[in-house]
Amino acid sequence: MSEKKIKVAIVGASGYSGKELLRLLLMHENVDLVCATSRQSAGQKLTEVFPRFRGGKADDLLFVQPDTDSIVASGAECAFLALPHGVAVEYAQDLVEKGLRVIDLSADFRLEDVDVYLEYYDKQHPSPDLMKEAVYGLPEVYADEIKAARLVASPGCYPTSIILPLIPLLKEGLLDTSSIVVASMSGASGAGKKADTSLLFVEINESIRAYGAPKHRHLSEIEQELTHAAGAEVQISFVPHLMPVTAGINSTIFSSLNEGVSGEDVNKVLLGAYQGAAFVRVLGEGVFPDSKNVVGTNFIDIGWVIDARTGRLILFSAEDNLGKGASSQALQSFNLMFDLPENAGLLHF
Amino acid sequence: MSEKKIKVAIVGASGYSGKELLRLLLMHENVDLVCATSRQSAGQKLTEVFPRFRGGKADDLLFVQPDTDSIVASGAECAFLALPHGVAVEYAQDLVEKGLRVIDLSADFRLEDVDVYLEYYDKQHPSPDLMKEAVYGLPEVYADEIKAARLVASPGCYPTSIILPLIPLLKEGLLDTSSIVVASMSGASGAGKKADTSLLFVEINESIRAYGAPKHRHLSEIEQELTHAAGAEVQISFVPHLMPVTAGINSTIFSSLNEGVSGEDVNKVLLGAYQGAAFVRVLGEGVFPDSKNVVGTNFIDIGWVIDARTGRLILFSAEDNLGKGASSQALQSFNLMFDLPENAGLLHF
Amino acid sequence: MSEKKIKVAIVGASGYSGKELLRLLLMHENVDLVCATSRQSAGQKLTEVFPRFRGGKADDLLFVQPDTDSIVASGAECAFLALPHGVAVEYAQDLVEKGLRVIDLSADFRLEDVDVYLEYYDKQHPSPDLMKEAVYGLPEVYADEIKAARLVASPGCYPTSIILPLIPLLKEGLLDTSSIVVASMSGASGAGKKADTSLLFVEINESIRAYGAPKHRHLSEIEQELTHAAGAEVQISFVPHLMPVTAGINSTIFSSLNEGVSGEDVNKVLLGAYQGAAFVRVLGEGVFPDSKNVVGTNFIDIGWVIDARTGRLILFSAEDNLGKGASSQALQSFNLMFDLPENAGLLHF
Amino acid sequence: MSEKKIKVAIVGASGYSGKELLRLLLMHENVDLVCATSRQSAGQKLTEVFPRFRGGKADDLLFVQPDTDSIVASGAECAFLALPHGVAVEYAQDLVEKGLRVIDLSADFRLEDVDVYLEYYDKQHPSPDLMKEAVYGLPEVYADEIKAARLVASPGCYPTSIILPLIPLLKEGLLDTSSIVVASMSGASGAGKKADTSLLFVEINESIRAYGAPKHRHLSEIEQELTHAAGAEVQISFVPHLMPVTAGINSTIFSSLNEGVSGEDVNKVLLGAYQGAAFVRVLGEGVFPDSKNVVGTNFIDIGWVIDARTGRLILFSAEDNLGKGASSQALQSFNLMFDLPENAGLLHF
Repeated sequence: MSEKKIKVAIVGASGYSGKELLRLLLMHENVDLVCATSRQSAGQKLTEVFPRFRGGKADDLLFVQPDTDSIVASGAECAFLALPHGVAVEYAQDLVEKGLRVIDLSADFRLEDVDVYLEYYDKQHPSPDLMKEAVYGLPEVYADEIKAARLVASPGCYPTSIILPLIPLLKEGLLDTSSIVVASMSGASGAGKKADTSLLFVEINESIRAYGAPKHRHLSEIEQELTHAAGAEVQISFVPHLMPVTAGINSTIFSSLNEGVSGEDVNKVLLGAYQGAAFVRVLGEGVFPDSKNVVGTNFIDIGWVIDARTGRLILFSAEDNLGKGASSQALQSFNLMFDLPENAGLLHF
Repeated sequence: MSEKKIKVAIVGASGYSGKELLRLLLMHENVDLVCATSRQSAGQKLTEVFPRFRGGKADDLLFVQPDTDSIVASGAECAFLALPHGVAVEYAQDLVEKGLRVIDLSADFRLEDVDVYLEYYDKQHPSPDLMKEAVYGLPEVYADEIKAARLVASPGCYPTSIILPLIPLLKEGLLDTSSIVVASMSGASGAGKKADTSLLFVEINESIRAYGAPKHRHLSEIEQELTHAAGAEVQISFVPHLMPVTAGINSTIFSSLNEGVSGEDVNKVLLGAYQGAAFVRVLGEGVFPDSKNVVGTNFIDIGWVIDARTGRLILFSAEDNLGKGASSQALQSFNLMFDLPENAGLLHF
Repeated sequence: MSEKKIKVAIVGASGYSGKELLRLLLMHENVDLVCATSRQSAGQKLTEVFPRFRGGKADDLLFVQPDTDSIVASGAECAFLALPHGVAVEYAQDLVEKGLRVIDLSADFRLEDVDVYLEYYDKQHPSPDLMKEAVYGLPEVYADEIKAARLVASPGCYPTSIILPLIPLLKEGLLDTSSIVVASMSGASGAGKKADTSLLFVEINESIRAYGAPKHRHLSEIEQELTHAAGAEVQISFVPHLMPVTAGINSTIFSSLNEGVSGEDVNKVLLGAYQGAAFVRVLGEGVFPDSKNVVGTNFIDIGWVIDARTGRLILFSAEDNLGKGASSQALQSFNLMFDLPENAGLLHF
Repeated sequence: MSEKKIKVAIVGASGYSGKELLRLLLMHENVDLVCATSRQSAGQKLTEVFPRFRGGKADDLLFVQPDTDSIVASGAECAFLALPHGVAVEYAQDLVEKGLRVIDLSADFRLEDVDVYLEYYDKQHPSPDLMKEAVYGLPEVYADEIKAARLVASPGCYPTSIILPLIPLLKEGLLDTSSIVVASMSGASGAGKKADTSLLFVEINESIRAYGAPKHRHLSEIEQELTHAAGAEVQISFVPHLMPVTAGINSTIFSSLNEGVSGEDVNKVLLGAYQGAAFVRVLGEGVFPDSKNVVGTNFIDIGWVIDARTGRLILFSAEDNLGKGASSQALQSFNLMFDLPENAGLLHF
């Protein structure tokens, strides 16, 4: 492993994706974590807030207030933003102007179309130019753009689990794009670390429930990327479900196959698509991915079956909502941006 | 409550649905449990095998060997069969001939068509005449037939959760029957009490996974009943998922609406359909049922949303896989067969 | 079952023990629930707040504001208080004066000694006379007093699990009272329904941790009752632990046996002590109780082993922290107070 | 990190501690895993049995039959035995004779006294000489012996969690050694990957239960090591409990302080004892360790409180039963044996 060290700041590190990002940055050999901000924990030691990290590089770090001058003063070359939607945009603008490269884990820069943003987020986007410049941080699709980007908008958890299985098939025109419906199941960390009684252990334990349908915000970025892949507008139905697990997302995706498309065609496209992709594990036909095999990693596992009776393809994916669905995927973009091996600091099992 | 007491036997009481049935029978004021069989626990006290039941009517009961002569000798008027598929059929034939009324929780008598049975269960049905006679034990649809039946084939867990929300809509012709896809999520008790390492706590905890697609055995009875309701052949795609909860099933059902059908039509049909049904709780549009609200009960909760962008209806149901999906539903049939109030012994919350 | 109906109010029904109490009262044939208060849910239907209770007697009930005039106006003969510590005392005083009999689930009236109250609750008790009058609601010990009481102070969850196994042995002088140490393990509902991030699913799932040692507030009532039984002051060490289960408490109690006490003596005393007790299930020597066998019930299960090598007795108990540890135990007192069978409305399994 | 590579074999890799060991060995930069045996999975790819490990160094490995000639032929310098008790002894003898250094995760070589072995394991030890030679693999106590050892007997999960907090205090004579009692709580992976219905998800989920008291096999090695530290025989009472978590062990240890010992003495000894220890995190007085902060790591966290009212010290520890309680601790010994940094391959968070 090269001795190269990149100075990195993390802004907003007290939530669940911030914590997972901290975990990964602290273990990454090419990262020098110079700044971690947290409004509520400023002044506290990192290891006080996160006792899990005692006994390593975190021992000497303090949380600081999230002002951009301090971040710049820390010498950071790159800032990860693990902030709520709507808050990230302010930091991103300022930090990019001050010369840092920024990887934003929020939804603030994921969309291309200001009208779609308005429709799904109920307000005008405050930085439409930067929004246009931002690169959607899906390394399997936009590696070249990510390498050169000043601002990467790292994808959402549900979107990653839905887009990656579908893209190769849409590109090859195998699917009836009007027939796609998705049921996704997510662990409770996806709901964030909020003092909300509906997220208490007693409420989520021994409970299964859908929510957010029919128009979850993530639909906007899912359809944007599926439309790019298909070369024509794609609209889908999407239902997320909350599961009593800490982490993990599974998506089960139904689509009718186009006339004349065989199961063999599907297998060929899917097996071929991700041969060189370090973090997409194509399990093959008839294999069902299990979230417990990807939690804590940057992998997404993909399997599928052909439902010959109805002419449908059913795709299955599993990822860690905090991993490939958030923090480790952001780190994968970081590796590309700073010319490190794509899997640097990410080969955990 | 009437003082009437029905003598009841339960055959095969050591699995999870057998245990839930025991629990309900022991609390039912009109039931006199005279016989409980278990091959592996014969000779043992019920409360030794199930310490949960100590301190009540179970205290004096012993498990006996499952031979039909002993069952008849116990004076039982009704026998519940909580046996594996393929085993129940032998007992059912014999007990019916000996004059008992039988409620079978297995899949042995749920189908009407011997060819479909052969296709899904890989063997000729051994009692085709009895199969023809058996009544599908869904009280919301076949109450009259159940009242008169000698043999009730109590529905499966997934089928109940899928059939009940769809039937009223199919009857009224609101749905595009070729467009139905279902993602179901079940607790681990649905897999039975088998000494199988894939069912260990460590394997299921913190895990989400699909299985059994594209041709799960329950498809056969689901499509049989949907076809009856629609008056035309219905084929669906169905994917069950295994969840880290003890009990509970949620089904999320996607279907395109027929041309010209409005959300209002859907609401009217669904709200009207189950007005008099004691155990179907229609939550209404925009309400997502939660499995934890039905576990331990005989209720099924149903909600839905209209996905106007894609012209789809998305239905949500939640039930206890061991309750409305198995044992309490069997007891609901029992109440009908023996002229008891439909909710006798079933109003637990 | 008798046709007798007691009019009952429940004050503060939106927490976890309030909800469990509601569940039990709604199923109790001799209870007519005439009033349920909740400051935060006043005006809402019970079934809106607790969808689990739809389809039964709850359907017609609304939550009302908790003022004592309304409670009196409802005609209630008995009020259950499921309020936070420190709040219950105000209602109790007023309601007792207005002629209702009161069962308080909080800690406000459990202690006898105002100095101990001051020491453990950091303030003067506001109603020392009523505190003196209140009966400690442990039916296995104070049945006669409970029958006649105007105000019952229903015991805490940890105390019940610790006191019941120890009392018979202390009464008979079998234990070295200076040697008692207890490790208890409780489900998360014991921490209440608070909007506190430390109680989120993600924080409690896959986590085991002690808390509250060495001087948990429950120590005060535990030692009060153990001292009564022993006839001499008893001090113990007590450590509660938080477990990733919704409900259930297990206590593991270590004590040295007094000189000359044999295992046989222990067995005789323990097996004899609770022969007539409807809800104490003495499992015997060498049997380990399992919380899942008591959750949802009013039972406490007790087992033990003799550690001959060290001269210690080790007792094990399991109960539902919301059941025998709170709400169903309160209902057991209610049955006594209103001359109903002790197990009325409590024989659920 | 040095480029040094040690060739390593793992014998019996299909259980839970074997799997965790595989995980760690596959990520260890100084390990070249040349052989992995599994009787039941011989001939299968590692990644077929453990899909979690796909996409890394495991991709090219096959499980082989566990015969010692093949292990030797693989060129392995060191063999880890993750075999059942009683099976490991055969392999250890043979492999040591053939010149490999062996780290045994079973209990076969942990005891020094053949009579104690007979008492606790109900048979004569088959290799008493090798038993004598074996070093107890607790690096915090026996680092020098481990460095030179041919055979390391890696400690059990419960013993590690109990011995490490107590040793410094016993060495300094602060505790009344006759007063020690321990309640431990373990995750379900500690029970192994056995096809046993009592270990099914449904049986362990929402369940808390004690087991194995009063004479669990681990007592023998716990008392052996405590006796060494105290310089006089120590006997304790020990109760393990089974918890519904995948991994993690917490131990809560009660002991009377000797006459004249102050809380300050305790703090000084405990804070001082592990200053240089890489994997013992001394949290301090009044801090309760949480198992979720150590799962997946090689850390043990230790906190304590002084119960002044009763003169007791109460110690709390948390570790991963598969980590510091088994596999990562074995790897810590490996690092010492092969002159690698003690934390090589172990700084995961």
